[in-house]
Amino acid sequence: MPTIYLAGPEVFLPDAQALMAQKRRLARQFGFEPTGPGSDENQAPSGILTADAIYRRNDLAMRKAEICLANITPFRGISADPGTVYEIGFMIALGKRVWAYSNHPDDYGRRVEADWYRGQALDRTSGRPRGPDGLAVEEHGMADNLMIDGGITATGGQVLRAATIPADPARDLAVYEQALVLLAQSVTADRS
Amino acid sequence: MPTIYLAGPEVFLPDAQALMAQKRRLARQFGFEPTGPGSDENQAPSGILTADAIYRRNDLAMRKAEICLANITPFRGISADPGTVYEIGFMIALGKRVWAYSNHPDDYGRRVEADWYRGQALDRTSGRPRGPDGLAVEEHGMADNLMIDGGITATGGQVLRAATIPADPARDLAVYEQALVLLAQSVTADRS
Repeated sequence: MPTIYLAGPEVFLPDAQALMAQKRRLARQFGFEPTGPGSDENQAPSGILTADAIYRRNDLAMRKAEICLANITPFRGISADPGTVYEIGFMIALGKRVWAYSNHPDDYGRRVEADWYRGQALDRTSGRPRGPDGLAVEEHGMADNLMIDGGITATGGQVLRAATIPADPARDLAVYEQALVLLAQSVTADRS
Repeated sequence: MPTIYLAGPEVFLPDAQALMAQKRRLARQFGFEPTGPGSDENQAPSGILTADAIYRRNDLAMRKAEICLANITPFRGISADPGTVYEIGFMIALGKRVWAYSNHPDDYGRRVEADWYRGQALDRTSGRPRGPDGLAVEEHGMADNLMIDGGITATGGQVLRAATIPADPARDLAVYEQALVLLAQSVTADRS
């Protein structure tokens, strides 16, 4: 049973334990052994672990896992949780199979325009779209910064997105489950 | 001369070329051969490269470099540029020497409270501080998410921060230069 590291910001939710337990149950249903933040149910809750202990636990879990499935739904801003982004880069460098999903349907560039610049139009008169502050805005049709989408797709993974924003984007598991289905097919195809 | 990958969001600035050239000059002054985004001065400007080409160029440069010095000054929000965070995780996984600097002096938790929750007090009545929306806030005395600071310090690197916010945090190079000084000493010490 391949080990899957479930990266994402769920650990910060007030109902983290219940939601992460549900994600682990679903992962097992599709033939994966889940690991990652909050997966050590019988150990101390992460709230009372030191930062260094949390880091070391995650580092070890990433090295042991075969697959990463990362929740890159925007977290406290326009991009994915930075801990999750670190883990995506880390596991791609280790040659793991990395996939991601987002409960936000829009391209990164569109979110920057709508949510960061609050709908102020980008300047498109030069070759590169720029915000009112002059900062260039990536418009590559990707879910987030091009290194994230780029790294995942260049190594054979997929970045899945919701078709529309669900009622509870921090907790909705429809795209997560869709990713598990496709990942399981992908693993089976590689082994046959 | 050790190769240093200069990660950071400078590439998005309207004056990116001049600022990145200045960062490369300083790196050379301290005995490093700079590489990373925007370092291929004689090639096509990155604005007209496709996302895939930019990704592949950065991926190759990271694999070739010995050191990463990452600018994790908050970018369009409360955290570092996600591309830079990806690169930090990637290069730590490859066993490179990774350092970071921020032109913001405050801990991540303090920035979340001041800038994301706009000064609304965190709920500290449970064991873990939480925002008005119930989301837990990391307060580990770190510059950003614990995986970033944790990964850098666990592998012998340093995360340097400005003592106060400079007049132009997107462009100020004082802490960058301080990092180069200390990195050069660290490289020399390792070789003696």
